[in-house]
Amino acid sequence: MQDHLSRTFAALSDPTRRAMLARLSRGEANVSDLAQPFLKNMSLPAVTKHLKVLENAGLINKGRNAQYRPCRLNGVPLREAVDWMEQYRFAWEEQLDRLGEYLKAKTTGGSHGRKR
Amino acid sequence: MQDHLSRTFAALSDPTRRAMLARLSRGEANVSDLAQPFLKNMSLPAVTKHLKVLENAGLINKGRNAQYRPCRLNGVPLREAVDWMEQYRFAWEEQLDRLGEYLKAKTTGGSHGRKR
Repeated sequence: MQDHLSRTFAALSDPTRRAMLARLSRGEANVSDLAQPFLKNMSLPAVTKHLKVLENAGLINKGRNAQYRPCRLNGVPLREAVDWMEQYRFAWEEQLDRLGEYLKAKTTGGSHGRKR
Repeated sequence: MQDHLSRTFAALSDPTRRAMLARLSRGEANVSDLAQPFLKNMSLPAVTKHLKVLENAGLINKGRNAQYRPCRLNGVPLREAVDWMEQYRFAWEEQLDRLGEYLKAKTTGGSHGRKR
């Protein structure tokens, strides 16, 4: 069985699912409103499957009202995913700083070095 | 073809690959040192496949030294992934705040309501 964090990242690894989460970040929506923009490019079962992946990862909750069934963004798994990444932020920021320094030296100071 | 961000999240959706990135956040390592701790539970081809996924997602770079081949963490895709999530942070933080308020009300004030 897939662990929690793996399920979250797997759910985020698709542009349709990320677009659905982006839509829900602006407020709750029922399933048909949420599905609507995607039905131009894919079938209803394909859209439903994406929603199911988000729901199984706990990224969206469906309301209990049988008629309306609003979907809402659930922040808990997103925060867990960011927390995991933040643990290593110091390492990647350091690496990005080194890369920045290197590129700066290459574009500004690099030609001096060669001319000497 | 999978987009950049989808490839990053897909690469992160596995505990072995996350453990490899965690190891590299402490400094570069060659392929065999990086593979070593995982060979207790999986075959060398399986470990190599995980490394390939990380490399294809641009999360690790391999050095050019033919003898040593050090692997290094590449921060660019990680920062892009965090940036994507941060866009919606306000929405999920708000939702988490509401959830916190609800739980607080339920545990502290909920019983008063019923007693009145």
